[in-house]
Parts: sequence; structure tokens; C-alpha cells
Amino acid sequence: MVGIKDVAKKAGVSVTTVSRVMNNRGYIGDQTRKKVEDAIKELNYSPNQIARSLQSNQSYIFGLIVPEIRHPFFSEMVHWIEYYASLINYKIIICNSVNDKEKESGYLKMLKEHRADGVIMCSHTLETDVYKKLTIPIVSFDRIISTDIPYVASDNYHGGELATQHLIKKGCKRLLHIAGPLNFEMLSNRRYDAFQVVCSRHQVEWDVLEGANINLTFEDNYRFVEEKLGDNLINYDGVFCSNDLIAYALSMYAKKNKINVPDDLKIVGYDYNSFTKTLQSPRLTTIKQPIETLAKQLVYSLQKQIENKGKRGADRSIYDVELIEGDTT
Amino acid sequence: MVGIKDVAKKAGVSVTTVSRVMNNRGYIGDQTRKKVEDAIKELNYSPNQIARSLQSNQSYIFGLIVPEIRHPFFSEMVHWIEYYASLINYKIIICNSVNDKEKESGYLKMLKEHRADGVIMCSHTLETDVYKKLTIPIVSFDRIISTDIPYVASDNYHGGELATQHLIKKGCKRLLHIAGPLNFEMLSNRRYDAFQVVCSRHQVEWDVLEGANINLTFEDNYRFVEEKLGDNLINYDGVFCSNDLIAYALSMYAKKNKINVPDDLKIVGYDYNSFTKTLQSPRLTTIKQPIETLAKQLVYSLQKQIENKGKRGADRSIYDVELIEGDTT
Repeated sequence: MVGIKDVAKKAGVSVTTVSRVMNNRGYIGDQTRKKVEDAIKELNYSPNQIARSLQSNQSYIFGLIVPEIRHPFFSEMVHWIEYYASLINYKIIICNSVNDKEKESGYLKMLKEHRADGVIMCSHTLETDVYKKLTIPIVSFDRIISTDIPYVASDNYHGGELATQHLIKKGCKRLLHIAGPLNFEMLSNRRYDAFQVVCSRHQVEWDVLEGANINLTFEDNYRFVEEKLGDNLINYDGVFCSNDLIAYALSMYAKKNKINVPDDLKIVGYDYNSFTKTLQSPRLTTIKQPIETLAKQLVYSLQKQIENKGKRGADRSIYDVELIEGDTT
Repeated sequence: MVGIKDVAKKAGVSVTTVSRVMNNRGYIGDQTRKKVEDAIKELNYSPNQIARSLQSNQSYIFGLIVPEIRHPFFSEMVHWIEYYASLINYKIIICNSVNDKEKESGYLKMLKEHRADGVIMCSHTLETDVYKKLTIPIVSFDRIISTDIPYVASDNYHGGELATQHLIKKGCKRLLHIAGPLNFEMLSNRRYDAFQVVCSRHQVEWDVLEGANINLTFEDNYRFVEEKLGDNLINYDGVFCSNDLIAYALSMYAKKNKINVPDDLKIVGYDYNSFTKTLQSPRLTTIKQPIETLAKQLVYSLQKQIENKGKRGADRSIYDVELIEGDTT
């Protein structure tokens, strides 16, 4: 491998001079600079970032743990996190927890060993204690881990309100909410809170069906609807789903079972990800999360912590959501 | 930050002893081992992987450059690459080139500086010379860079044959192929080669429409169909599209313009990614690429090169594809 010494030899200068040129430090004559630059080019030399990061104690790497990168919500999230991190010269190591506790803690250990400068947590399978003990900067998406760990989320409560109010405004009298898993204190549970409050306020009957973890395939979502809801679907005239993939599976289930959407059954989804945007028939009525903005804030919140030497702040960033009206309500 | 010296002090042993315990080298008494392990746990110490990789000259990091991680084909590819890399203890730094030359070469430079042990190239905006000059192991997806750089691809030629034969078997007489960009020597161009050959063999009239780079949004794909094809669509009774997103946009365009699919127009796509699998109406007839297998082979081919100390082999791995019959033919 080509080292800085080889460059110095080739250019006929000292290692210190090469280092000065590369770091733009101290006075260097134009001719010397050119000799060094030519030698770097000719030898195809690139400075050893690992050695540098050992000196500076900064790796310029963020860890990013997501539950399922194939899910369109998270693949968009990853896209934008990578984009905003690259603007501040950070690289991303992605880790796919597939909602597996062991994998998630294994990744955290690995990121620590690699001296990642910080971690963006979008997967949440562990108890909050584990994250609290981490000695590197961390920012969480959609989960409050502790008062001193910043989080970023969309306004899940408002999303729940918008969806429920919309269904009621459209005439629904018996509502169902298909929620995500409610075991952890996820901020997405606020959608359910708002759903209950709005239903009660309008004296509308309601039920909740607790969802499994994210189902990626259509078959899994369809089976969930069929097995967990099935014939009971007839008891409801409106369903607020915790994500668009399940909303789509529900609309297909209704179609197959001759339940007319939106006349007899109204459906509202959540996310407005690339799948939803591409889908034309039916166009789902859904709640749009500002994915790009969320990603940007996750990156900047982590950067801020790092600049403050890991001192955790109480940064809480909540971004508003929006109702997108489609054909299912 | 906690260092090995702190562990040694806490355990009341020498740094060498701590190192021996951590690396399982030399004789260590049970009691000493326990003292060291307790100290590691208590201090929440993790070995510095950066320092280690500087010693071993291996970073256990692969670079992965994709053109667009939000595209369902590539988000699945990333998922499986990450999965198979993690099985051999490699981490992935993902880079999104968004088909931008400058970004792509910037990322290559960065990966070299970070001493990535190898690079998986799924984005191809640069001339082959750039890749050939890279001094780190590299494996390419869907592009032949040079005889000494291994590549992995699905059998694009066979895919083109299957699609075209299927359309002809279904009675089509005037076929169109919507290709990807044909400027680079991409292996996906073999689909077009096969299309021409099969059409000629069956004396079927054909045309080709050269596509733009991957369009991610429905609007972009729809606009492409509308502007580049538009009224000319009436001249064809079958279209073989280079990916499923454009096939879907085409089917929606036909619907809007009262062209009956499949009676008056038959459509075959390519990829069978998560979008296609989820989509129920219409179910696209398409060519299935074995995404998981491709990802696995990319990882293993790179690993092989690294084990052979960067000596590039002529590994060429071509995997078969499959016709999935849906409602559009």
C-alpha cells in the first residue's frame, strides 16, 4: 500500500511537507505544492482515514439502526439520512435489526467498537435501560428513551386526530383502529390515544386491534386482516390503519369480500411512502409523515450532540403531519 | 473514553494480561480472567476496533454504492447484502450515487480513505477506467468493467427471451421494448438484444424506446410514457418494459386512455420487487430477478477476492430468472 513516505520520496520533499500540503497548513511554495500533488496523483495515494480518526478520535461515521430497510417508509428514511449526513461529511453504517433483540444489541456493540460518532435509532426492540447506558451520542426516532436522549418524531397525536376526525366527518359511526404493537412506549401509540379521545368526544363507538410488528409482504398483511378481523369487519364502517401497507391489504380484503370502499367501509392509512405515492388504484386516504424533514432533523440533532462533546440535550423535535385525501374515504 | 489501561488498573493486572484475555491468547488463570471480565463489564469498555483495524490493515467494512436506495429493487438488494455481510462479520457503508458522476467518484475516494476492504458497485455512471484503477477489491453488479473484475448479474438475455416469447405466444404481432439507458455497456442491455433476436426469429415487427435513468416517482414514469410514447402506443399490441415501475405506469396510462389490458395491449415488466409483489391490481406479468441470490453472491465474491489478497479473479456469476404470469398478458 502506498504511504505518505512514498509520496514524500517521489516528490523529493519531507513527510512534514506532504502533510502540510494535504492539510493546508503552513507556508508551501507553489512549485512544492505542485510536486506533492503530482506525486499523490501519480501514486494514486489516499490518506489513511482510519489513522486520522484515531488521532482525532472522530470516525465521521454514524450508525443507523432500522427495523426493516425494505419497508418503503424506512428505505426513504435511509435515503434522506444518508443524504443529509453526506452534506456534513458523515458516512452511514446501516444495520437492519429486523426487529430482533439480539441483532439490535449486537449492532450497538459493533458500532461502539467501531467508534461510530453517534447512533440514530429507528429500531426499538430493547428496554430503555440499554440505550441509556450507551456512552455514545444517540438520537431516537419515534420513541422517548429518557429525558436526556433527544428524539425526533412526527406529530402522531395530531395524525390520529386528523384521521379520526376525517372518518367521522365522512359519516362513520363505528370505528376501528388497527394499531402497531402497543407493548413499548412508542410515540406512534399517540395515534391510538387521539383516536380514543376523538371518538369519545363525538360519541362514536370504537375498537382497537393491536397489530403485529411491521409485516412487509402483502400476504402477511392480508392474512393478518383475514385472521384477526375477518367476519368482524362488518361491525365497522371506518378503519384507521397504522400504516399504508395494512390499509392496502384491508382494501383488497374488502374488495374480495364485496364490501364497497368507500361507500360501506372507509379506510385511512398512515405514512404516505413511495408505495402509497405510486399506487393509483385505489389511491389511499392517508396521513403523510414528512420523511425528509424527520431524517434531516435526526442527522442534525446527532451532529449537535457531537459538537457539544456528547452532552445530551433535551432536543425534542415534533413535525406536523398532513391528511392526503384519496379514494378510500 | 475508557481505555485498556483503565481496565488493567481496575482489575489490578497488566495491560498485556487484559489483552490476552480479550484475544484468548496465552495461559490465564480462571480468577484473573474473571477479574478482567468483571472490570470490562463494570467500566463498559469496548475494544477500539479502529486501532485494531489499523494493526490488521482490515476494516471489516464493505462499501456499497447504489444508484437509488428508495427504489424497491435496490432497497431489497441492500437488505440482503447487509444480511450476508453480517454473517461474515462485515459492516456496510452505503452510498447513494443518485446516478451522479461526481457523487459516485466522491464516494469511491471516501471508501478508499476509510480503507474499506472492498466495494460492491451497483451504480455505474463512470467510465470503466475509473474502476479499473481502483486499488481495492471490487465486484460489480450488472456491468462488465474489465476481464479481471468479477461481476454478478441475473441472466438478462434469458429474461429478454422469456418476456418476448411470452408476448408472442400470447398473440402479439407488433412489439415495443422500453429499455433502460443504453449508453453504458450494462448487462441489462442484453434484454434488448434477446428481444430483437426473438422478434426477428418470429418475424414480429418491433421498436425500441430508450428509457431515461430510473424514475422513482409514479409521476415521472407516467410522464415518460405520455411524452415519449403517447399516441404511438396504438401501434403496438405488446410492450416489454425494463422495470416494473414503468410497466405499472404504462398500465395506468392504458387504462386512462381506454386501451384494454390485456386484450388490446399486453405488458411485461422486469424485477418482481416488493412493490410488484404487493400490488394486486393489476398483478403485473414480469420477469423475476433472484435478488437474494444476487446479493449473496456479490458479498461472497468480494470476500473471496479479499482472502486472495486482492488478487482479482475472473468470477462471473449469472443467475437465472423466471417468468411470473400476472393479469397484464
